[in-house]
Amino acid sequence: MTDAHDSSADPEGADPISNWGRWGADDERGCLNYITPDVRAAAVAEARTGRFVSLARPIDPLPLAGGPLATTTTKAPAPVTHAMTYTGFPPPALTDILTINTHHAELTHIDAFGHMPVDGKVYPGIPVGDVADSQGLHRSSTTAFASGILTRGVLADLAPGGALPPGHPVTGADLDRALARQNTRARPGDALVVRCGWDLPASSGRPTPGMTVDAVTWMHRNQVSVYLGDIGDAHPPVDPTLPFPLHRIGLARLGLPLVDAVAVDELAEACAELERYQFLLVIAPIPVPRATGVPVAPLAVF
Amino acid sequence: MTDAHDSSADPEGADPISNWGRWGADDERGCLNYITPDVRAAAVAEARTGRFVSLARPIDPLPLAGGPLATTTTKAPAPVTHAMTYTGFPPPALTDILTINTHHAELTHIDAFGHMPVDGKVYPGIPVGDVADSQGLHRSSTTAFASGILTRGVLADLAPGGALPPGHPVTGADLDRALARQNTRARPGDALVVRCGWDLPASSGRPTPGMTVDAVTWMHRNQVSVYLGDIGDAHPPVDPTLPFPLHRIGLARLGLPLVDAVAVDELAEACAELERYQFLLVIAPIPVPRATGVPVAPLAVF
Amino acid sequence: MTDAHDSSADPEGADPISNWGRWGADDERGCLNYITPDVRAAAVAEARTGRFVSLARPIDPLPLAGGPLATTTTKAPAPVTHAMTYTGFPPPALTDILTINTHHAELTHIDAFGHMPVDGKVYPGIPVGDVADSQGLHRSSTTAFASGILTRGVLADLAPGGALPPGHPVTGADLDRALARQNTRARPGDALVVRCGWDLPASSGRPTPGMTVDAVTWMHRNQVSVYLGDIGDAHPPVDPTLPFPLHRIGLARLGLPLVDAVAVDELAEACAELERYQFLLVIAPIPVPRATGVPVAPLAVF
Amino acid sequence: MTDAHDSSADPEGADPISNWGRWGADDERGCLNYITPDVRAAAVAEARTGRFVSLARPIDPLPLAGGPLATTTTKAPAPVTHAMTYTGFPPPALTDILTINTHHAELTHIDAFGHMPVDGKVYPGIPVGDVADSQGLHRSSTTAFASGILTRGVLADLAPGGALPPGHPVTGADLDRALARQNTRARPGDALVVRCGWDLPASSGRPTPGMTVDAVTWMHRNQVSVYLGDIGDAHPPVDPTLPFPLHRIGLARLGLPLVDAVAVDELAEACAELERYQFLLVIAPIPVPRATGVPVAPLAVF
Repeated sequence: MTDAHDSSADPEGADPISNWGRWGADDERGCLNYITPDVRAAAVAEARTGRFVSLARPIDPLPLAGGPLATTTTKAPAPVTHAMTYTGFPPPALTDILTINTHHAELTHIDAFGHMPVDGKVYPGIPVGDVADSQGLHRSSTTAFASGILTRGVLADLAPGGALPPGHPVTGADLDRALARQNTRARPGDALVVRCGWDLPASSGRPTPGMTVDAVTWMHRNQVSVYLGDIGDAHPPVDPTLPFPLHRIGLARLGLPLVDAVAVDELAEACAELERYQFLLVIAPIPVPRATGVPVAPLAVF
Repeated sequence: MTDAHDSSADPEGADPISNWGRWGADDERGCLNYITPDVRAAAVAEARTGRFVSLARPIDPLPLAGGPLATTTTKAPAPVTHAMTYTGFPPPALTDILTINTHHAELTHIDAFGHMPVDGKVYPGIPVGDVADSQGLHRSSTTAFASGILTRGVLADLAPGGALPPGHPVTGADLDRALARQNTRARPGDALVVRCGWDLPASSGRPTPGMTVDAVTWMHRNQVSVYLGDIGDAHPPVDPTLPFPLHRIGLARLGLPLVDAVAVDELAEACAELERYQFLLVIAPIPVPRATGVPVAPLAVF
Repeated sequence: MTDAHDSSADPEGADPISNWGRWGADDERGCLNYITPDVRAAAVAEARTGRFVSLARPIDPLPLAGGPLATTTTKAPAPVTHAMTYTGFPPPALTDILTINTHHAELTHIDAFGHMPVDGKVYPGIPVGDVADSQGLHRSSTTAFASGILTRGVLADLAPGGALPPGHPVTGADLDRALARQNTRARPGDALVVRCGWDLPASSGRPTPGMTVDAVTWMHRNQVSVYLGDIGDAHPPVDPTLPFPLHRIGLARLGLPLVDAVAVDELAEACAELERYQFLLVIAPIPVPRATGVPVAPLAVF
Repeated sequence: MTDAHDSSADPEGADPISNWGRWGADDERGCLNYITPDVRAAAVAEARTGRFVSLARPIDPLPLAGGPLATTTTKAPAPVTHAMTYTGFPPPALTDILTINTHHAELTHIDAFGHMPVDGKVYPGIPVGDVADSQGLHRSSTTAFASGILTRGVLADLAPGGALPPGHPVTGADLDRALARQNTRARPGDALVVRCGWDLPASSGRPTPGMTVDAVTWMHRNQVSVYLGDIGDAHPPVDPTLPFPLHRIGLARLGLPLVDAVAVDELAEACAELERYQFLLVIAPIPVPRATGVPVAPLAVF
């Protein structure tokens, strides 16, 4: 761990951790490459009873349209807006439209690799100016998730029944301790679900816990295929000289898909009750291509 | 006045005021028909110095998109949402998109006749089921305003320097008194701008002043071409048995275009300073067809 | 079958098939009530290898914003529009917004019960005027799907390797024959996936095949929990006196969730190759409440 | 002219034409500063009969929502999308929402100075990174147009009754000749309306006419306050080493507001018929702040 930490301490340095080129210059899947047929077979073997839990936060859409006296507004974007649409009189059907703010902090969503440029490049090392225009991302987009993701998931509950203290820097050792406490371990190709016990949108400016470079290096070494967490990068950064390591190293350099704003309390309760911290994890976003992110409702199946 | 009031007291009765059929079964212009070339010539004669005042309320758009920590939202619709759009890196240009909630109470906008069905029909007497589908209004829409409106405007300041009391029912006599106090009068084809001294979105549920059937009848008799006001129909209704007379009789039966949510304080100050309550009024909405309303920025030119 | 057909021939008659009231006047789940813990356990038992297939049609979003020379437009709505959003210069991240036309014929989506009024009511018998306003559906909405759907799926391939003839009226006997040919059967709580071999948006006005009242009655009798198909109701209706039986009887009277515009060719190929027509079916829409429908990417897991 | 042309031939050079700093480092109005009270008085003096013409192109909105069989789509953005909104059953009112693609080539709109960075800066010389974020432009935005624009307009019809040849580079001499032919001239503060006789969205890739650096220098010398035209910058550029001079020099360096995609044929006919090429010009956009552009319907009043 120490060595790994040392080698990654300067991610812009001579020998940072990176998967750029590991699966070729045209790779679109990044750490999803860790999910082999054997991993998928092991994943479905975890689904024994059919009990399942959603990892999506609830959504309360903002009406896009409204009556003449709806006058209170705010200036913050909404995760989802919604409008009922008129179809005729009497209405042959009731229909609607939804507008989705893909990376909103209250919306459970998966980041495409192209979401985060680092040093002007996105995974697997393409200049951002070459990858995106007004039509979207032409590489490293949500297209990678279009057929869905199925793998084994493992929960690391870092604060069972409680919450990490404000500003806690999550390390690889924290992850090791949590898994050991649960008598489980992460295997190559696993999706890692992290619980810090924080409701981020309700954190009201308190310093949040967050992943360190060391934790990201741990994910790299353990060949984690997808990260899902109630917390990701710390706000404010744990190390201001290395802000956003989960996004800048994990997403951008490793090609590790990140599911932000995940609801994990119900999952943690189920795991504790069942005394099982592994499960089949299914992520099935709508197959919208060229986007930088897409909302998801991951399901953990026991 | 009394007779007119009596005859209109039951707008669903034997002889309500109505312009249905007055300009033909296919008419799309309603009271805009009162604006003759002579009226327009009189209108531009009021424009002598080029000083002008906008009657549009300010807009503070709600961001449609935003960063990961913008988490405070509300559940009320916004008048206008806005998103900056990505055009490349470096950006060859900065561009954006706007979404407009056409009838929002904070947004100065003009109502198309088809906005308000009464007894299942819209001006000039067409069943609402025949007029609208998911593609919009096929009759009695904003198409009528596509080439712009130019006429003489006259201000009726009902509460100079102050505000009407809560719940005040505005009558034709109120309008007559205001005009007499200003030494002016309404002529056929004039746009009537009414100032009650209320900031409606800030009224916080207090009963608002509003137009009565009598006031609408006064507009009919005086051949008003367009109504603009800081207040329109009262909330709650002055007469619960005849709610929304400005919309249900003025807009729907007379074909009187209504400009809702108008800012008139600056206009009233200019009129008082200049001792002139007539002006050239120009309304130039974007020519979007088939809509039920469209935002406007009416200009009063002195 | 004949009896069932007879009893349902007049769905407005004395004894139509209906589940209104079957699970209570406040029921929000309809046929999802058929999915018991035993059904879910049988469902996950079908997931043995981890091979999986998505049943979502590909999406090609319409740009919402664009450069000055993008001038070609059309007047048909798009299933999904997309805009890249500006986050600063240089961009700290690339982000976007999506607008979703929930019931578009090219978009794989699940209908909420409140999508379809019949005789002025929606499942389980509530007047449409009580259920919906500009804020959405207050009953019988997508809220029912918020936690996801997991059950056993069974494919009925009605035209292996080909397509049903134009206008073919699909009956219960057709479904029985398809299942028998596959050596499988539908069990209570199963999701029924129907393949007719049609690419509906490419059908160019030819009369499509579609479900008959008899087929819907078959689904009722077999306690189907969810319907998914490349074809649903026929256009034009098979029986003009009973149009849209899948929506008007299945969705509205039975409370049978319908997944429209499903891609099933790849699933049919996998089933044929594996000689297995049952699978674990997972539907995980984003948990947007109050909507009339929501896009989905159902996954069939073997 | 020759000298002016020479001095501006290299707009990035030692002495390019520019108004950066002319009205202060905080200036938000650019060439609108040329519109003095005297100019406005002269403007309204041109309005004698009340006849008026709109300079806005017609709009045919794309439906945002639609029925299940509306399947034909395209991949080009629309200038305006529209959706009718559901308000209840029966509908107490018909309402809608509009989405506006502010800089679409088919939409008559006015560019804010911040729309066009040149050398990484926007008028009056502010780095683009300081001026814009996801919330919009904090300087040099449409806020400058919020109270409306009223000035004298003058038409320069460069091809009476016809059209300029493809690729024609419009020079100051062309503008002088057109005005001389009409027996008129441009005075300081005038809005310049240019007619080339082209319907740009229908030009199908033919090289368009467009303004040269020389023409922009002419506007600078004549203190033009606003540019409106059926053609602006040439596509492809007349001089590839100096592309987009109207936007890169006029808008960005001079602070000259540009109204793109103007309809001028009806105006040209009115001018020819009246033998008058000056008029009162009124531009009254909705007062949306922080945007990079806003649609307008300029009115020319005679």
